[in-house]
Amino acid sequence: MIVLSIVGNSNSGKTTLITRIVPILKQRGFRVAVVKHTRDFEVDREGKDSWKIWQSGADVAIASNEKTALIMRGSKSLDEICRFFEGYDIVLTEGFSSAGKDRIVVLDESSKPEDFANGRIIAVVADRDVPGYRTFRRDDVDGIAELIVDILKGKNF
Amino acid sequence: MIVLSIVGNSNSGKTTLITRIVPILKQRGFRVAVVKHTRDFEVDREGKDSWKIWQSGADVAIASNEKTALIMRGSKSLDEICRFFEGYDIVLTEGFSSAGKDRIVVLDESSKPEDFANGRIIAVVADRDVPGYRTFRRDDVDGIAELIVDILKGKNF
Repeated sequence: MIVLSIVGNSNSGKTTLITRIVPILKQRGFRVAVVKHTRDFEVDREGKDSWKIWQSGADVAIASNEKTALIMRGSKSLDEICRFFEGYDIVLTEGFSSAGKDRIVVLDESSKPEDFANGRIIAVVADRDVPGYRTFRRDDVDGIAELIVDILKGKNF
Repeated sequence: MIVLSIVGNSNSGKTTLITRIVPILKQRGFRVAVVKHTRDFEVDREGKDSWKIWQSGADVAIASNEKTALIMRGSKSLDEICRFFEGYDIVLTEGFSSAGKDRIVVLDESSKPEDFANGRIIAVVADRDVPGYRTFRRDDVDGIAELIVDILKGKNF
């Protein structure tokens, strides 16, 4: 399983890029997970049973016929989170720049690749040419996905 | 790690019992998870980034400093779910009567223990005496928790 970080400033377009790449990878038959940081989130809606159980102090799994959710107390490292996705082909992380994983850097006007050099930079996504890096335009989603597919197939890496 | 099912008819009081037992087990230092069936649930709120990523087809992990959530496509067996809780002391299941785990049966007026005999019945919770079973009254939460602690400590099992 490969872990690849999509890093860049806030509002640089990381989420949009990820949501456009994922369907392509899925269509190619890869099993894809995305890890995202967030300030905070709610466990179901207040008053519902799973919320009550969470409030009682237990960690919770909610299982339906369509999907399964696990909610656990405490901060986890990226490596700990990735362990849950054993068996997947690729885990894309949104952010997690400091985790040191190989990365694609999404640049805005005010950032440069070196701001995100805490890991190997595979490519840069930018509206300008960036010398020294394999650079993709923001709307070249197919090109970016193709690079990731090459990585998944063991080429180009 | 022990898996113990809390089974009974709908509205028999399973959730209430679980939410009262969990704090006692936590206070004794046990690491507790609860697995719950549900018809369906939402991945965060519509329009939020984690929702968009889910909609794009990826399974998702959402990490904050306080908690971590994983949401995965597909139905999972109880054993598959329990594997995620490796390292916990006890997984309580709400329902999952057919999974065959040891169980505490919460009775209402219209049910009897034999309705839930697809696994070893450790105890029965009921507002009446139930011959042949170790029976607790609904509000004897301390007694029920104590039984579970005994099980966790390897007594009485």
